[in-house]
Amino acid sequence: MRNYFLGARNTWTLGLLISLAVLCIFWISTDNVMHMLNEVQRINDTMFVCSESFEDTRAYIQNRPKDDYNDLPIIYFVTPTYPRREQIPELIRLGQTLMHVPQIHWIVADDYDGCNNFLDVNRFGIPYTHIASPMPDAYRSISPSPRGVANRRAALNWLRQNNKKTGILYFGDDDNTFDLRLFNEIRDTKKVSMFPVGLIGLYAVSSPVVKNGKVIGFFDSWPAKRKWPVDMAGFAVNLEYLSQHPNATMPYRAGYEEDAFLRSISLRMNEIETKANNCTEILVWHTQTQKSKAPMVRIDSQYLESEKSNLGALFRELESMGVSHQSDSAGIKAQISKDGKSKPFTFFFR
Amino acid sequence: MRNYFLGARNTWTLGLLISLAVLCIFWISTDNVMHMLNEVQRINDTMFVCSESFEDTRAYIQNRPKDDYNDLPIIYFVTPTYPRREQIPELIRLGQTLMHVPQIHWIVADDYDGCNNFLDVNRFGIPYTHIASPMPDAYRSISPSPRGVANRRAALNWLRQNNKKTGILYFGDDDNTFDLRLFNEIRDTKKVSMFPVGLIGLYAVSSPVVKNGKVIGFFDSWPAKRKWPVDMAGFAVNLEYLSQHPNATMPYRAGYEEDAFLRSISLRMNEIETKANNCTEILVWHTQTQKSKAPMVRIDSQYLESEKSNLGALFRELESMGVSHQSDSAGIKAQISKDGKSKPFTFFFR
Repeated sequence: MRNYFLGARNTWTLGLLISLAVLCIFWISTDNVMHMLNEVQRINDTMFVCSESFEDTRAYIQNRPKDDYNDLPIIYFVTPTYPRREQIPELIRLGQTLMHVPQIHWIVADDYDGCNNFLDVNRFGIPYTHIASPMPDAYRSISPSPRGVANRRAALNWLRQNNKKTGILYFGDDDNTFDLRLFNEIRDTKKVSMFPVGLIGLYAVSSPVVKNGKVIGFFDSWPAKRKWPVDMAGFAVNLEYLSQHPNATMPYRAGYEEDAFLRSISLRMNEIETKANNCTEILVWHTQTQKSKAPMVRIDSQYLESEKSNLGALFRELESMGVSHQSDSAGIKAQISKDGKSKPFTFFFR
Repeated sequence: MRNYFLGARNTWTLGLLISLAVLCIFWISTDNVMHMLNEVQRINDTMFVCSESFEDTRAYIQNRPKDDYNDLPIIYFVTPTYPRREQIPELIRLGQTLMHVPQIHWIVADDYDGCNNFLDVNRFGIPYTHIASPMPDAYRSISPSPRGVANRRAALNWLRQNNKKTGILYFGDDDNTFDLRLFNEIRDTKKVSMFPVGLIGLYAVSSPVVKNGKVIGFFDSWPAKRKWPVDMAGFAVNLEYLSQHPNATMPYRAGYEEDAFLRSISLRMNEIETKANNCTEILVWHTQTQKSKAPMVRIDSQYLESEKSNLGALFRELESMGVSHQSDSAGIKAQISKDGKSKPFTFFFR
């Protein structure tokens, strides 16, 4: 009898232990993303505000006086960027698009260990913050590289530190294409809004699947077991909703940034607001700009003296922007041509 | 005596003939570009104006009422384009830049045998002309393809047919990046102005070499014996000057379009006006967008019915824009995912 009870008790204990183990494995496997988030939050992110302005110098926007828009919530448009020879034109092109958008604050977060003064974000006349937020060294060697994560985390920190609890957060990369209609669409986001992004993956589009106005699934060619298989440019978040999730963040894990971020704000499927005419139109495009390495051009420094020609000033400008580099002894040999003939520099500058 | 004179006369005749032959060879070799131009002008270019508007619906441009700019010459901004999955976003992005530019007329010339209605150039509120100007079949098989030539020739024809003899002509591709300051710079071009273009060739820049305000040569990594080794985006032409050269045109020869065009308007080096602070700044960039083929996506048509979800309308939009194609039987098999799991279409739509 005693043995029987003992045996029964042992069986119960064993069952309980197995159940606990199973639960534990289940919990670890489903919540590994949250674990990862907790872990990465212990990383010391570097963030330095290089310059910022809350002044909007525009008098008119889209045919109306700026003040007509004062009641609209501000869109915090977060652009991660990093030094490369195409960086300046990308930001110029994007800045010129944002100049059409009322009530916007552009957060340009540069993956650079210092303030790159050529990122002259001030010139567009819109409110902005220029942040230096280099990727921690530990992640530089990882492949694929979690590019843009340090930048977006820095922007989230900036929003918290500046106590921004109204307005809209949107992540817009420097090489994407934004139809101006997008900004009208996302501005009234209550919690999280979603919409299709063109030129993503093997389908050339990533979109929520919408039935009777509700999201029922996701059309994305790389689901990768992600609960939220969406592109960074495919959603917007209300800052009041975001502020209710003080641990909201993004892990240093390429391809899973969106999923983990949306998990960290406890998004539920039935809360998603659909935009772009119930996700039937494309208002944002994942265009990608061809990248090349900045070349080294071989020109004897003596020919770059300012009184000789424009080339000295031009090369200093190119160098500052990271477009090309000059060397006296290495790189592709430069030539100047005239009337269809290449001639040595000595021909032009004695 | 008579024989002597005859001999002398023969020697003179022979000398004259040899001289003529040498001159002739010299003329053929140096002027072969003009020959080529004469030849190509006999080609029957196709050109059809799909739609156009001379109305400017903008009330304010760059903080000033539109009418403040009425005295400025019009910039005829010629954009050759062609169908590909990136075409629509490129034109949206460029159109949104041009919305900031006063007194502009955008000529969008599409290399397409019909009027692609998705090129909704009207939406930007700026005066425009949408031309269908397909490349003649004879050139489609040539490699490298003389892309954009039929389009620019059509734009030149449009300017002639509409008797446009004042204003400025500028060739601006759909994937380039244009700093708004460029437009101020080129607007007072008297004959031909030139300036550096970033991200061209092995030097990552192409520029005139300027000494004491005068162009003395060209800094371009691909001189290719061109008299004018410049990029299409590196010069602007006054229309009055252009109209003095009624045979001005561009040959179907990849890489030599700029050179031949500038030869056809008899440009001389000492006439070139330098812009962009004496060619020391970059105001236009030859950014290039990554291109991919529009994918074929396999989805059973029955799941694309309008009442089922947003996917039907979304796919019709993508198809019209040439972004992707749908097939019942071929291509990459589409899937929908939910909660991290891919499920068959039947799961969502019974």
